[in-house]
Amino acid sequence: MKPVNLADKLSQFSTHWDPHVVADYNGNDIMVVKFQGEFPFHDHPDTDDFFLVLEGEVTLDVEDRSHTLGPGELFVVPKGVTHRPRAENEAKVLLIEPAGTPNTGDAATAAKKPRI
Amino acid sequence: MKPVNLADKLSQFSTHWDPHVVADYNGNDIMVVKFQGEFPFHDHPDTDDFFLVLEGEVTLDVEDRSHTLGPGELFVVPKGVTHRPRAENEAKVLLIEPAGTPNTGDAATAAKKPRI
Repeated sequence: MKPVNLADKLSQFSTHWDPHVVADYNGNDIMVVKFQGEFPFHDHPDTDDFFLVLEGEVTLDVEDRSHTLGPGELFVVPKGVTHRPRAENEAKVLLIEPAGTPNTGDAATAAKKPRI
Repeated sequence: MKPVNLADKLSQFSTHWDPHVVADYNGNDIMVVKFQGEFPFHDHPDTDDFFLVLEGEVTLDVEDRSHTLGPGELFVVPKGVTHRPRAENEAKVLLIEPAGTPNTGDAATAAKKPRI
């Protein structure tokens, strides 16, 4: 039970598409992640997917539309909806997913989500 | 399914301790709220309580400790833990609670949480 400084946590790693867990909320992982480049299209059949941009610019390709988000903008991708995050330049993002959700939608290719 | 600009949403109301729902995530209300002054001590017996400071400074009195949070700092109060948010000057906060959670811990005194 202590405050979590997101910038401090983000300074602890430099890898992209590598979410790190910083807090728990009712069985959900609260994570910070750095995006750069394109992630694969995927979906999460059992959960919504929460993105809040902290720094930089992120584009979410969601079905047949693209949504560009800047700092202080959030987007919730509903469960089962195919999406792809991408960022031309490095962007920093707060993610929320139920603990154990594979970030790629597939446990075989998912990131490990270390806790920091 | 569209981006939510938190500053835009916060500009739509001026009341304090009056959370407004801006998005849904797996049955949780994603809310923005303005704090100023002291809220009553309370707890939520069935849910954790998520706070992320967007602007200004918030103090959370949690059991026998006080935690001061600035922008980009979050805190999760575990379920059942007594807490009181307060802010000397206006602060803007992102909150997450399961839909229907009374913000005071008591349905009789809870805010209505309008959707914007």
